[in-house]
Amino acid sequence: MQRIAMLGSGFIGRFYADSIQGYRNKDKIVSIYSRREESVKKFAEDYKVGHATTNMEEAIAHPDVDIVCISLPNNLHEEAVMLCCKHKKAVMTTKPLGRNAAEAKRMVEAVEKAGIFNGYLEDLVYTPKFLKAYESVKNGALGRILWAKSRETHPGPHSDWFWDIEQAGGGCILDLGCHCVEITRTYIGKDIRPVEVMCWADTQVKPIDAEDHSIALIKYENGAIAQFEVSWTFRGGLDLRDEVMGTEGTIWSNNFLRTGLEMFTTGKGADYVSEKAESNTGWLFPVGDELNELGYNHMFMDMFNALEQGQQPKESFYDGYVVNAILDACYKSAKSKLWEPVQLDIWRGQEGVSKDSHLVEYDADHYLVKEEMTHYGLKKLILKNKQTGKIFEKEEK
Amino acid sequence: MQRIAMLGSGFIGRFYADSIQGYRNKDKIVSIYSRREESVKKFAEDYKVGHATTNMEEAIAHPDVDIVCISLPNNLHEEAVMLCCKHKKAVMTTKPLGRNAAEAKRMVEAVEKAGIFNGYLEDLVYTPKFLKAYESVKNGALGRILWAKSRETHPGPHSDWFWDIEQAGGGCILDLGCHCVEITRTYIGKDIRPVEVMCWADTQVKPIDAEDHSIALIKYENGAIAQFEVSWTFRGGLDLRDEVMGTEGTIWSNNFLRTGLEMFTTGKGADYVSEKAESNTGWLFPVGDELNELGYNHMFMDMFNALEQGQQPKESFYDGYVVNAILDACYKSAKSKLWEPVQLDIWRGQEGVSKDSHLVEYDADHYLVKEEMTHYGLKKLILKNKQTGKIFEKEEK
Amino acid sequence: MQRIAMLGSGFIGRFYADSIQGYRNKDKIVSIYSRREESVKKFAEDYKVGHATTNMEEAIAHPDVDIVCISLPNNLHEEAVMLCCKHKKAVMTTKPLGRNAAEAKRMVEAVEKAGIFNGYLEDLVYTPKFLKAYESVKNGALGRILWAKSRETHPGPHSDWFWDIEQAGGGCILDLGCHCVEITRTYIGKDIRPVEVMCWADTQVKPIDAEDHSIALIKYENGAIAQFEVSWTFRGGLDLRDEVMGTEGTIWSNNFLRTGLEMFTTGKGADYVSEKAESNTGWLFPVGDELNELGYNHMFMDMFNALEQGQQPKESFYDGYVVNAILDACYKSAKSKLWEPVQLDIWRGQEGVSKDSHLVEYDADHYLVKEEMTHYGLKKLILKNKQTGKIFEKEEK
Amino acid sequence: MQRIAMLGSGFIGRFYADSIQGYRNKDKIVSIYSRREESVKKFAEDYKVGHATTNMEEAIAHPDVDIVCISLPNNLHEEAVMLCCKHKKAVMTTKPLGRNAAEAKRMVEAVEKAGIFNGYLEDLVYTPKFLKAYESVKNGALGRILWAKSRETHPGPHSDWFWDIEQAGGGCILDLGCHCVEITRTYIGKDIRPVEVMCWADTQVKPIDAEDHSIALIKYENGAIAQFEVSWTFRGGLDLRDEVMGTEGTIWSNNFLRTGLEMFTTGKGADYVSEKAESNTGWLFPVGDELNELGYNHMFMDMFNALEQGQQPKESFYDGYVVNAILDACYKSAKSKLWEPVQLDIWRGQEGVSKDSHLVEYDADHYLVKEEMTHYGLKKLILKNKQTGKIFEKEEK
Repeated sequence: MQRIAMLGSGFIGRFYADSIQGYRNKDKIVSIYSRREESVKKFAEDYKVGHATTNMEEAIAHPDVDIVCISLPNNLHEEAVMLCCKHKKAVMTTKPLGRNAAEAKRMVEAVEKAGIFNGYLEDLVYTPKFLKAYESVKNGALGRILWAKSRETHPGPHSDWFWDIEQAGGGCILDLGCHCVEITRTYIGKDIRPVEVMCWADTQVKPIDAEDHSIALIKYENGAIAQFEVSWTFRGGLDLRDEVMGTEGTIWSNNFLRTGLEMFTTGKGADYVSEKAESNTGWLFPVGDELNELGYNHMFMDMFNALEQGQQPKESFYDGYVVNAILDACYKSAKSKLWEPVQLDIWRGQEGVSKDSHLVEYDADHYLVKEEMTHYGLKKLILKNKQTGKIFEKEEK
Repeated sequence: MQRIAMLGSGFIGRFYADSIQGYRNKDKIVSIYSRREESVKKFAEDYKVGHATTNMEEAIAHPDVDIVCISLPNNLHEEAVMLCCKHKKAVMTTKPLGRNAAEAKRMVEAVEKAGIFNGYLEDLVYTPKFLKAYESVKNGALGRILWAKSRETHPGPHSDWFWDIEQAGGGCILDLGCHCVEITRTYIGKDIRPVEVMCWADTQVKPIDAEDHSIALIKYENGAIAQFEVSWTFRGGLDLRDEVMGTEGTIWSNNFLRTGLEMFTTGKGADYVSEKAESNTGWLFPVGDELNELGYNHMFMDMFNALEQGQQPKESFYDGYVVNAILDACYKSAKSKLWEPVQLDIWRGQEGVSKDSHLVEYDADHYLVKEEMTHYGLKKLILKNKQTGKIFEKEEK
Repeated sequence: MQRIAMLGSGFIGRFYADSIQGYRNKDKIVSIYSRREESVKKFAEDYKVGHATTNMEEAIAHPDVDIVCISLPNNLHEEAVMLCCKHKKAVMTTKPLGRNAAEAKRMVEAVEKAGIFNGYLEDLVYTPKFLKAYESVKNGALGRILWAKSRETHPGPHSDWFWDIEQAGGGCILDLGCHCVEITRTYIGKDIRPVEVMCWADTQVKPIDAEDHSIALIKYENGAIAQFEVSWTFRGGLDLRDEVMGTEGTIWSNNFLRTGLEMFTTGKGADYVSEKAESNTGWLFPVGDELNELGYNHMFMDMFNALEQGQQPKESFYDGYVVNAILDACYKSAKSKLWEPVQLDIWRGQEGVSKDSHLVEYDADHYLVKEEMTHYGLKKLILKNKQTGKIFEKEEK
Repeated sequence: MQRIAMLGSGFIGRFYADSIQGYRNKDKIVSIYSRREESVKKFAEDYKVGHATTNMEEAIAHPDVDIVCISLPNNLHEEAVMLCCKHKKAVMTTKPLGRNAAEAKRMVEAVEKAGIFNGYLEDLVYTPKFLKAYESVKNGALGRILWAKSRETHPGPHSDWFWDIEQAGGGCILDLGCHCVEITRTYIGKDIRPVEVMCWADTQVKPIDAEDHSIALIKYENGAIAQFEVSWTFRGGLDLRDEVMGTEGTIWSNNFLRTGLEMFTTGKGADYVSEKAESNTGWLFPVGDELNELGYNHMFMDMFNALEQGQQPKESFYDGYVVNAILDACYKSAKSKLWEPVQLDIWRGQEGVSKDSHLVEYDADHYLVKEEMTHYGLKKLILKNKQTGKIFEKEEK
């Protein structure tokens, strides 16, 4: 059983609390901190939390607290983490870890120096679909991974602070790109170094200083390529799709808008459909159990199990730091219009991985270009002569 | 926290145990009973169960046990239920409740006389999709419900006893139809009386005495119609689809084969994909978290919450009895080739509900048959004169 | 090149004309007949038809006409067919052929006596998807066919005469069921005799005398079963889905609402989406080329090719007659509540087909019930002893 | 009626011939040229072509020929076009027009100087789905277009010459990217200038000199962004998907692998499924009528109709030239790793279009950032003060 101090009582804090306390879990929020008195009260009532305070340190230091859950705006993460270090409390932080890699690095160094458990709450690598898909990828069902793409777009966040570049630290790249970077990085392999980044970003629709649409490519040392598409301008709901492609297969994952539940209604009895849905008439695509589909349940399970077993969770602050470093390169690239190197002062994966070979041997003299079954029943081979380089067709039974 | 005695250590008992103990739940299996020594040992080890026995009554009577979970073949349900009554233990039973309504009725009467908590483990009305869909139906998003259909087909059950008509009590009607009947009955309204049934059943493929394919219609007192399609001969995996249609909308739910996760693999790294999948190469459709998608998690949550709050769970033995009564009528109809009445000695819903009217008033003199927008921008009405009965078209701006 | 006399200038006549003249076809409508002067004029202008008349016989008898296309309300088919016989003109008729089997039989006998080409315009067995699926079925990709289902539901027809039981001859059974019957009959085999029928029908929503919702089962001599679901009360567009299930596989076909084109729009620029769409905001599912997807193009191609090659088209009046005979049995069954025999005075398929066996030999002493791969890598067999009837499990490498 | 000379009898020439002659079309191939004697003979027999030759000029100059259809490897397009100019024959050419913009420009200038009809056979902007989607885009259903993406990936082309960089002129960028560029350019607006390009390309799998995987971004003068994803390394069939996103909506189009036809087969009766399918067991996704779904039918209809009406077809050589210019920039960028300008010596669209504004007025003092309905029924506004730049929330009824 874990006893949690929740820092922050907003949209995400409530989502977390619903996940932690909304099922048959043994875990319990025992302290709630929020900046606003009325908000902290309401949360304490709704979730039956014994200790409620507008003093952050008090919540963290509370003797009943086993682990602190940071659900605050991005600009307040570092301060909260430092207090957890001071009081030697296990800590987990909502995404992104910092507003940039410098902040993130300071947090990594602080928690490691303090020797405290640290978890990075990247829920989207904990969705049931991702977990299942990743298992297949690890088992080799897709062969060597060539490309991974993650897309998260919707009509924009719910709270005002997201839209303010000072508090948020950025726009949709930071808000949504952090998910996509970690999803694709996990598929490609966390021990493979992200090398350089090309990013396009623009403010196409919203009257804000930050970007509201961005696309980026991230090159990994082994030649694999990651891609993200993020936007706050999408119309139609919350579009959460991942794809990964390997030499032996592909996976398509639609996490929100097409999950097998489809409803048409003329609009009588209209009601809340799901997060960021834009309509409640016509064809609608609700999600069964949002908390579960968004990965919250399996994420907290991993965090608490790891803590109890004295292990690292799948996602730690170090992962958050790598993500921030990649996003920093994205912002730099969006401005410079150049491929920008990913600056990783701390790197714990493989070093000097070489690019995978693309030469498939057919026989001593030839490489295999392609093999296919013709519709008249013969096997057609396309081969390349190793010496002359000539490419030619050949049919076989 | 609930302490459970599990009766049965087979396929379904393990599924239940994974759901009850596989997350962060506070609930715990404290006793396991199975007929076979080696099976009971293995289960106790795998799930760290303190008390293991091949004596059913011993498991039930164990002082630590709060609630008994029956996961035995159909022919053993009654005996187990009677022992729970004797020892005044809360009980929940896998589906179907009995092999027929007579058995089910005896169980209902026994638990009610004993005054014990009784839950009917019909997981498919607890899937996240069903819960979400049903909420919309209750809110009126579909208007008046006209028709509900549930389909469950797959290549046949895993264990031998299912195929033996004596132990199972029937074939796919009893095994799968019980799910479909309760799903459709819930959409139409549990307080509406099922009146009569028409059922076709046949043994088309398997060398068994029971049916391996069946289709049935169930008429309700308010004029709504339910339908099931069940089979043990389907090729392609586990096909679990529901549909419901009302005057204002429709819902389509695909619970297993199309849930937004799609994988192609040439077959390297082949592995277990999901329950009753038939292939591990080509295009595959794994399910993220089977336990959750099949409703187990939300089902046990309802059971344990209800027990703790001194309430009835959503599904009680009485529901199991109604399902058995409908299935009895199905078997009778399959033989007699007639619409057979549903015999309900105990009925706790509404009495004498009349069929819903199908006359929609347009104005004092006319009924409205149809209204549609033409592609040239006019509203086209089809009206019926109340007196003459004449039907005619009319266009409006 | 074929020169066509079109009888009828309504919704369906225009659909047909768009198909015949809207592409690069060599065929041409040379005469148009309609009951109303203004309608006939408009059609002639729109489709550049040389000869326009309100006299049916004049259109049929016109010397330029190679083939007559009947697109009239059901109650006028017979009269038109008789005139084609009189003038020895090739004829093709929209579906259903007659209002009942008696009418249909008279038409079959008349055209055969007159020795004229006769085509039955059942477009839905000519959709590109059906043609492709059927090819696989014929090739044996699904093994022995066990069940075929066709569903057509929408919010009701466009023209007033459909709603009038006298002109139409029935409700949605006749209007939509005729499609479903021929689709499922083709999958099962046109030479297999439909034996008996069970049908439920009701008027649940519309203020009409005919049925607005019906479900039926049709049993074939070889033990296969067909099913239809038809309704004029569905909300959400035109739902056109077929399924077929065999011992070796299954096919799911969604012909209209989910064809791979998905659009979300807030509603600006709203416009005609597709036939029987019910909304033009939110998520919409337009169809690329309706004429093609609904089978019109491939249907007329078969008709004209057959005519030129002196062959029968895939669908002739005889098929229309069989369909009407099945629908007659449906109407009878809906009233009598009994399985009603299909009365076929003319039967041209196989006679005395016996029911397919369901006994699959495993070895001399056992039948095979089921074979599956366990997730721990063994093959699990469920076998039945031929003599004792006992069913048991066995594992093999 | 059009009489066609077909140059090339390979895979694509046969696809074209099937489209032109496989339905009820009045058009006819009257001459066939191919380099190989046996191939030309076979084609002439199969398609009943009167004139067959291994002399290209002879086919073009044949007096019966109205229009020449070039279906040759990329390196032979220019020669064929020049001969058409010499003989003043209308011409249409398969995609891409040239191997690079220089070749394409010479062809544009030649046909325009010769004053002959010229069509660019970009079939994928003629698929029924694209035509329907584009109509909605033009009508404004998506508002202002922000982003368009096209993806074409498959396991590699059928013929050897594609894999040879000299004959083909490039790899998957040229082979597949040409489709994607024209699809996205059409959605964004053909009169909007493509400004600059960022492209990543690599040879990840195949033993060839050309690229087998590439991703690119194309920036347009109005701020819209296009994207392509192309590969010859995809496993799972022919993946053809487009997306377009505007301020008011989105369109998703799946042209091949998910079109509403789904089949499971254990493999008995295995047969040709569809172009570039990789399996014939398990779950398969055949396409109804490939020729139609791939746009060939509507493409030739536009070509021939335009020719007869003395108009330009939707796709002319000039479009092919713009596509080649964009692809040239892609190749340059893939090497230089820089955003490369699109060099367009000939530009016929709008000049000096400025970037669309992203400021949406709420009232005199504020911009509107976002408006959404809360689930407790209030409208929540996020506004930005025009002067202070401050962003804040506000709720309204």
